[in-house]
Formats: sequence, structure tokens, C-alpha cells
Amino acid sequence: MTSTVVRFGGGIRSVGELERDHVTDVSVLGTGLMGSAIARSLLSAGRSVTVWNRTAARALLLGSQGASVASTVTDALDASPLAIVVVSDTNAARKVLGVLGEHSRRLDLVNLTTGSMADAEALAAFARTNDVLTLEGTVVAFPAEVGGAHARVMFSGSQDVWERHRETLVILGGGSEHISSRPGAVRALNNANECFFIPALVSMMEAAAYGKAAGVSEALVMRSLREGIRKLAEYCDYAAPKLANDEHATEMATIEAWLGGAARSAESMKTFGFDARLISAAEATLEYARDNGEGPSDITSVYRSELSAARARVRSAEK
Amino acid sequence: MTSTVVRFGGGIRSVGELERDHVTDVSVLGTGLMGSAIARSLLSAGRSVTVWNRTAARALLLGSQGASVASTVTDALDASPLAIVVVSDTNAARKVLGVLGEHSRRLDLVNLTTGSMADAEALAAFARTNDVLTLEGTVVAFPAEVGGAHARVMFSGSQDVWERHRETLVILGGGSEHISSRPGAVRALNNANECFFIPALVSMMEAAAYGKAAGVSEALVMRSLREGIRKLAEYCDYAAPKLANDEHATEMATIEAWLGGAARSAESMKTFGFDARLISAAEATLEYARDNGEGPSDITSVYRSELSAARARVRSAEK
Repeated sequence: MTSTVVRFGGGIRSVGELERDHVTDVSVLGTGLMGSAIARSLLSAGRSVTVWNRTAARALLLGSQGASVASTVTDALDASPLAIVVVSDTNAARKVLGVLGEHSRRLDLVNLTTGSMADAEALAAFARTNDVLTLEGTVVAFPAEVGGAHARVMFSGSQDVWERHRETLVILGGGSEHISSRPGAVRALNNANECFFIPALVSMMEAAAYGKAAGVSEALVMRSLREGIRKLAEYCDYAAPKLANDEHATEMATIEAWLGGAARSAESMKTFGFDARLISAAEATLEYARDNGEGPSDITSVYRSELSAARARVRSAEK
Repeated sequence: MTSTVVRFGGGIRSVGELERDHVTDVSVLGTGLMGSAIARSLLSAGRSVTVWNRTAARALLLGSQGASVASTVTDALDASPLAIVVVSDTNAARKVLGVLGEHSRRLDLVNLTTGSMADAEALAAFARTNDVLTLEGTVVAFPAEVGGAHARVMFSGSQDVWERHRETLVILGGGSEHISSRPGAVRALNNANECFFIPALVSMMEAAAYGKAAGVSEALVMRSLREGIRKLAEYCDYAAPKLANDEHATEMATIEAWLGGAARSAESMKTFGFDARLISAAEATLEYARDNGEGPSDITSVYRSELSAARARVRSAEK
């Protein structure tokens, strides 16, 4: 195993001098599954990379694959004009970046650590006080897919950072893009994804468990759910223009009809002893829509009824 | 508009005589969107069809397209050796089939009206007392797709009826199949589908509303959810063998990790004034799994924790 350990001195220099002093193109802080995948995709694309990890062993493996290994965060931040932070959670990111004031060269920062919208804004503000501009990013891919044409990283925050490093950042995923100058925007997008994806996954498991209890094999249920996912994709395409126009007349099925199905299925789950949390929650949201005059509308009208309720609640809290 | 009105006398006859007396191949009771699509697909395939509808106008349209129009349910039941019932709901089906004792020829019945498992068993029992065997069926297709290679009707109930009429029934959808001799099995399968599909759809709308409130465009959210649906299909394929083996070690993400995401997203929804019913329900189900020792397991372990809870509840109710 060959690995280069990078060490730097500090001190004040002119910008030209600073840029010359960078020894690698990109630093990656955090070499877990995702961080390692990112470092490897950059190395494969011919970028020179410095890595740092809290526990050194994982970083050293990347050292043997061509990365320079920094022994401190400050060294890693000083090594490259662009640092990508991808650690376990916001607290870890905060800890790692606590030393941001101590770095001594020009630096742009990309944070790929998932956190809240407020975390993103706070990091951007803290970095700015240290003359560092930031991008927040969310990786829409499993680690094994990083660097491929179908992987995507969505970025928001500093437009300047995006433009300076675009060619490097699209190495992580062919479909990568910058969606907003607000640092929190990709966090909001990520939350929106999870508000769909997690209930969908959990209800898939509840459905399989119900099927088993009701005497239908998992294989049959899963095959049927697979078909349901195909229909979900069709519904998503059908719904998109309706949501864009906030127009909810239906060519498919009314809120009343969905409510009938939800009530019947929830009742059957309960008969078999299930809590039926997801289908009951769906029933409650559909009831709320119906009680707000959406009975004959498409299920897309849930968008309208939930958004109005949320806005009213925020307005009344502001009073 | 030409339409034939069919009328029959009653009386007791030998089976051979009964079979000869049938004047069409199939009767379709209920000519709403789905019933009409079914009648048309049968006519297109060269079957002779008798139709009946509570309000005659819709049936007469099919009369102009080659169907015979019966003026009473009993006439329709007497017209063909196979009757397909597809009306708005179980109550309507019960009303229509109340005259079952009055039909006078050999009859097999297929009920495509969605209802509960108990409704299916009750109809089968009632039909049996009138010497009629039944199949329950659920159409896995939109009306416009009926009769196509990709449409599917899942049947359960009398194996004899399935075997006698298989060639006719597969006209409705190329992928049609008989899954169980229990009449309620397709209702259970349909409920399982809805326990997944309805929460998934509702959470899609909640996610879009949240995205809007948090400053992300619907277009961007919907594009991102579309990507999520692709991942959901991958997860379904990944989960199927895990469920079949009830084995829940993870190669993806732990219950703890999903719980972190669910909690963060639920909190953000609430910050923006949303009830966040679906993501909160998912969080509760994940918490239940974690509290039952599934913290380090795959999200498929929700199947195990929910099924155990349901079975324990049924056992304790039986005591």
C-alpha cells in the first residue's frame, strides 16, 4: 500500500499564490460508502484527490488507489480548491467543519451530508463568515451508481461555486444539476422525496404482511405490487400537469371512490389484527379533502387541500 | 340504432335442453365504463353478448354495437351460460343478484364488482344455494386497456367455472389467471394492492404540496418523485426474496437510518404547517419495528414486525 500524507504550513498569501499552492484538485472529507464512491469516481476521471476520514483506516485504502491522505481536516481543506464533505449526519459535519477558520487557502465547499433545511442555511452562513462559499448537494443514487450516467446529484446554494466546479461535479453523476441559489432547496427536495418514498416503502411492507395474513402468497402480492408501481408511474405523469395548473377534475377516479377503497382495505387490515397505520393515514387525508369539497375531484386535489390547510396554519401561527 | 330485446319463459328442463336454449355466449350485467369495455372486448373477439343495465340508455348503446339488450336481470341471466356482473358496489351487486333464484337455465357467474372478502364468500354461498357456481374477479387495468395483452383479471373461486370459461375470460386481459379456489382471495389481493397504492398516491400529493410550500417547484418535485418510483420498483425486486425467506439483513439501509429520514422529513413538513399524516404514520411503523429489535434490519423487517403484531392481536382476541 502506497499512500502520500499531505502536510501544509499556514500563513497569509496573495490569491494567485494560494491557488498555486493547492496540491490536488478535490478533497473528500468522509470516506464511508458514499464518500469512497465519490473519491473513486473522481480518481477514475483523472482528478487528483485528497481524502480525510475520522478513522484513518478507510482513508488509507483510498490512498492505495491513488488518493493523497490528509491526517487532519485542516490539511485536507488546504489541499484543494474544492472540498466535498460527506459524513454520517449534520452533527458530524458540524464537528468536521468547526476548523473552517483555520484553513489558509482559497476554498469552495460542497456539503453532501443530509441534514435539515435550517442546517443547510446555518452551514452556508458560518462558511461565509470564513470567506468560504458553499453548495449543498443530495446524491440521487446508491453508492455503486455514483459516477455513472444515470446517477444524479442535485445542488443548491452558491451559483459561483457551481459554475467554477461544474465540470468536476458532473463527474459524480451525469444528470447532476444546480436547482436554486437557496442552500436549503436540495434539502427541501430531499425531504419531499422522503415524504413520498418512505410511506410508499412502509406501505409496501404492510401490504405484503396483510396479504400473508389474508392467505395470499408474498410472491403473488409482490408481483401485484410491482404492477401497482407501474401504475404509480403512469399516475405521476398524469398528475404532473394537474399539479402545475392546480386543476383537479378527474378522468380516473374521484376522492369519494378512493375513500371507499381506503375504508374497505383499512377495515380488512384491522379485521386481521393490523394497526393499518398507512392506509388509515391515507383515509384521514382523503376524508379531509372530501370534507373540503373535493369529493368529486381527482386524488391530485389532496395537493390543494393539504397546501391550503398548511398555509392557513402558518398564517394563523404568524398572527 | 338496432337492438334486440331478449325475452324468455321459465320452467324446468333437462340440462341438454337448457344449454341449447342459451341465445348468447355471455351476459354482462352493468354497462358502466368497465362493463361496457368488457362487453365490447367480448364482441370484438366474436362472442355473442347480452347486456343489461339498470338505466337502459347505456345498454342500448351497446345494442347498436352488436349486443342483445335484456330488459330484466332474469332475462339476462337466462340468455347465456356465463354472466359477468360489474356494477358500482357490493350493495348494487346484491340487489341485482337478488333474483338469482328466478333464472331458469344453467348458469355460471363471474362477479367483477369490488367488495370485501366477506362479501365474496357470502355471494358464493348464496349462489350455491341457487345451484350457481361463482368466480370473483378483479380487473388490473383501466377500462381503456381491457381486452389488451397487458390487461389482467385475477380470478378466485370455482375452479370448474374457470376451466369451463377460461377461453372467454382471457379475452378480457391476456395475463388473466385463477389464483385460488377461495372466493375471497382476489378481494384480499385487491385490498393488499390498495394498502400500498392509496398511501403511495396520497403521499405523492402530500410530498408535492410540501415541496411547493418549501419553495421547490412541482415540476422539479414530480420529476424527482418519478425517479423515486423507479427506485421503488428496484426495491420491490430486492425485497421479494427477502419477504419470501422472511430474512431481513440489509444491504441498503437500516430501519434506524430510515427512521432518521422519516423524523427529519416529518419535522420539516410540520414546520411548514402540514399534518404530515403519511410520513408520521410511516415513522410510527418504523419506530414499532425498531422497538421490536429491528433497528439494524432492512426496512423489509416491517413485514415481520407488523405480521407478528397482527397475529398476536388475533390470538389474544380469540382467547
